[in-house]
Amino acid sequence: MKIGTTRAETFSDGVIAIIITIMVLALKLPDFDRDTTSWRMINHLKELIPYFTAYVFSFMMIGIFWTNHHHMFHLLEKTDEHLLWQNLLFLFFMSLIPFATAMIGANPLLSVSSALYGLIMLMTTMMLAVMRHYTILKKLIHQGEDKKTDKKLTLASLKGRNKSYLGAAAYLVSIPLAYVHVYLSFVCFAIPPIIFFIPTGIDDEELSNKIEEKNASKINPA
Amino acid sequence: MKIGTTRAETFSDGVIAIIITIMVLALKLPDFDRDTTSWRMINHLKELIPYFTAYVFSFMMIGIFWTNHHHMFHLLEKTDEHLLWQNLLFLFFMSLIPFATAMIGANPLLSVSSALYGLIMLMTTMMLAVMRHYTILKKLIHQGEDKKTDKKLTLASLKGRNKSYLGAAAYLVSIPLAYVHVYLSFVCFAIPPIIFFIPTGIDDEELSNKIEEKNASKINPA
Amino acid sequence: MKIGTTRAETFSDGVIAIIITIMVLALKLPDFDRDTTSWRMINHLKELIPYFTAYVFSFMMIGIFWTNHHHMFHLLEKTDEHLLWQNLLFLFFMSLIPFATAMIGANPLLSVSSALYGLIMLMTTMMLAVMRHYTILKKLIHQGEDKKTDKKLTLASLKGRNKSYLGAAAYLVSIPLAYVHVYLSFVCFAIPPIIFFIPTGIDDEELSNKIEEKNASKINPA
Amino acid sequence: MKIGTTRAETFSDGVIAIIITIMVLALKLPDFDRDTTSWRMINHLKELIPYFTAYVFSFMMIGIFWTNHHHMFHLLEKTDEHLLWQNLLFLFFMSLIPFATAMIGANPLLSVSSALYGLIMLMTTMMLAVMRHYTILKKLIHQGEDKKTDKKLTLASLKGRNKSYLGAAAYLVSIPLAYVHVYLSFVCFAIPPIIFFIPTGIDDEELSNKIEEKNASKINPA
Repeated sequence: MKIGTTRAETFSDGVIAIIITIMVLALKLPDFDRDTTSWRMINHLKELIPYFTAYVFSFMMIGIFWTNHHHMFHLLEKTDEHLLWQNLLFLFFMSLIPFATAMIGANPLLSVSSALYGLIMLMTTMMLAVMRHYTILKKLIHQGEDKKTDKKLTLASLKGRNKSYLGAAAYLVSIPLAYVHVYLSFVCFAIPPIIFFIPTGIDDEELSNKIEEKNASKINPA
Repeated sequence: MKIGTTRAETFSDGVIAIIITIMVLALKLPDFDRDTTSWRMINHLKELIPYFTAYVFSFMMIGIFWTNHHHMFHLLEKTDEHLLWQNLLFLFFMSLIPFATAMIGANPLLSVSSALYGLIMLMTTMMLAVMRHYTILKKLIHQGEDKKTDKKLTLASLKGRNKSYLGAAAYLVSIPLAYVHVYLSFVCFAIPPIIFFIPTGIDDEELSNKIEEKNASKINPA
Repeated sequence: MKIGTTRAETFSDGVIAIIITIMVLALKLPDFDRDTTSWRMINHLKELIPYFTAYVFSFMMIGIFWTNHHHMFHLLEKTDEHLLWQNLLFLFFMSLIPFATAMIGANPLLSVSSALYGLIMLMTTMMLAVMRHYTILKKLIHQGEDKKTDKKLTLASLKGRNKSYLGAAAYLVSIPLAYVHVYLSFVCFAIPPIIFFIPTGIDDEELSNKIEEKNASKINPA
Repeated sequence: MKIGTTRAETFSDGVIAIIITIMVLALKLPDFDRDTTSWRMINHLKELIPYFTAYVFSFMMIGIFWTNHHHMFHLLEKTDEHLLWQNLLFLFFMSLIPFATAMIGANPLLSVSSALYGLIMLMTTMMLAVMRHYTILKKLIHQGEDKKTDKKLTLASLKGRNKSYLGAAAYLVSIPLAYVHVYLSFVCFAIPPIIFFIPTGIDDEELSNKIEEKNASKINPA
């Protein structure tokens, strides 16, 4: 059954919004006495630095995942049962990011923390690539107006998919590297944000206006 | 008073999104010293396996509940006061899933954990069946275009309802079985996802396009 | 500045959805050893009964508040700056319900728990009445088609407001009664749900269809 | 790529709704024995007063931020990649408010608590100003109907931006003042709400009707 994309987007947005926000709950200070000094407070804050760093990084990655998810669904005309389940699996792996963040934030230099963080990020990025791949394969993206537009839209989807594959590759490599030296895995973690930030070059105004029009006119209940 | 389905869907999506996500908060490691070894960390991770398994299962079931809720509301033309309250009761039982998941995850082999998990799942699935039943009875589903379409839509609703009854039956049986042998209740828990994953066979393109059009044109404020 | 009602509704729905769901986080068992017996587990579950009762009650009340909020905004054509702030104040008092629920759930027989619960419920219900009053006063409800419809819509709003005042009165009385005898305040808590459940009698199909049409055609961006 | 504003608004609303609500989780009483007296309960409640005060203040500020965010996006015709990232940074700083609130609530008289609270509020307010500035610069606000309307809309955006700069200035000053005397920083914290509450004077009905119409007709998928 082919269905409109709206409710899947709303639900995903809700889940992603909660995931990105509950990570902050792990950022907490011990219960202090009323007579705590500024000095002791600062010392406690210093201990939070590794977690805070992990939080910043995970927040940015979830933001990137959301933007990519947004862009992917933006190009879709319809969704189907299978894509909904892939989307759920994507959200499942994403839901583990707060746990992995807490783990790496508490013990940043342990190989196992870094490897697990890399694994969860790998699975999330892979699911993004899989969804891109599926929507191209099943022709769920907008189509039919003219050949040139169709080609451009497919190209945009392909670029999105390849970026996700590249990001996933970096995370894949980070897992064994965490056991060689934990800092090497940190280097790998820095690669996907760079990949995703490099503009894709399909940003011509004309095309994006066309998609907007198609989205506005598409059968989109609720 | 008959009202549009949008805000009920948005609110339900919000609640379901939160329920599915806060379960991850129970997945946590003890506060470690900075000098924890990878070995001790792995041991702690091993202890999380039962909870993680329960988390995966509950995440999947909530995903199934959401998809079914989505499909049910998709077929509706309007909602009414009574359905809103049934929906709230559905959300109430669903809101207990994180508690039941934490309980079964902490003590998976206790009969009482398994029985309680089965009970909460039973109530949630029953409410889904009750809502399907009510919408058929009160003719809240799209109607009036032609006899053939009307029949197909009613059939789709009936199939959805029967699946929910079957799922509920499996959970009902799981409760006494938890006291015979806890693994027998686990077998019961595996049945509803199978029932829900078997395609219903009403997925003809033509019909779903018709519903989409009706949804798009229905009186749907906000 | 008069603005569309959609984003205020979405935001409120989000906040209410979170409030209603995070209450379940207080429903938790102590960390058990792996060798806990079913017997000990059941004893712990028994201790949760007061909290569970409070949870059921608060869940129902938040559901009622949401339904009333939904109905109120349903009748509105536009919102303004002042109503947005009243709405925020409404959400603020509502956000204290999980705290009051945890308090009364932990110590149900203390006068102070009951009085505080009554106070927070009083403030929330009052804000609902205030918003109803304000929308009637500032003529924010749908108007202008014909005199009969205008009258009916104003009447519906007035009835909604009066119900909220009655509910607030019951909560007001519950506060001093909690110090006479705590069970007397529980009796008061039972009154508002009864008031809100009694149908208002303005549910004629014709009128609700008219509002739906007006909402669908109203200037309602995003 | 220029894209519709809807999904960015929905996602932001979700995140802000969660931030404003999870702050209440820090408002909790210790686990009591069943035989606690009202007296001891009241003593514990008294200890929550500083946190409760901080909670009220942060709730109000987040409400103000949401209203301003709402107004800003209300004037936009489209959004772009850069604005989405600025928005994410805005949400990031906002997500730290619950942490800062818990910190200042636990130790209100420590200079470091007050300075950190001021810093996080400064960054959030700055991002609001930056976004206002960017949308004016990149002409993302509604344009093209007639010169008078265009001018008015730009003026409204400029006023919104300047208010944010003023608020940010107050928070900036609060940081060093927290080390002079902590109460001086509290005085600074009182300034931004006053700035934001003073009406901007662009509230002519005619103009806001025009924007509403433009928003309703704008290319706004999903």
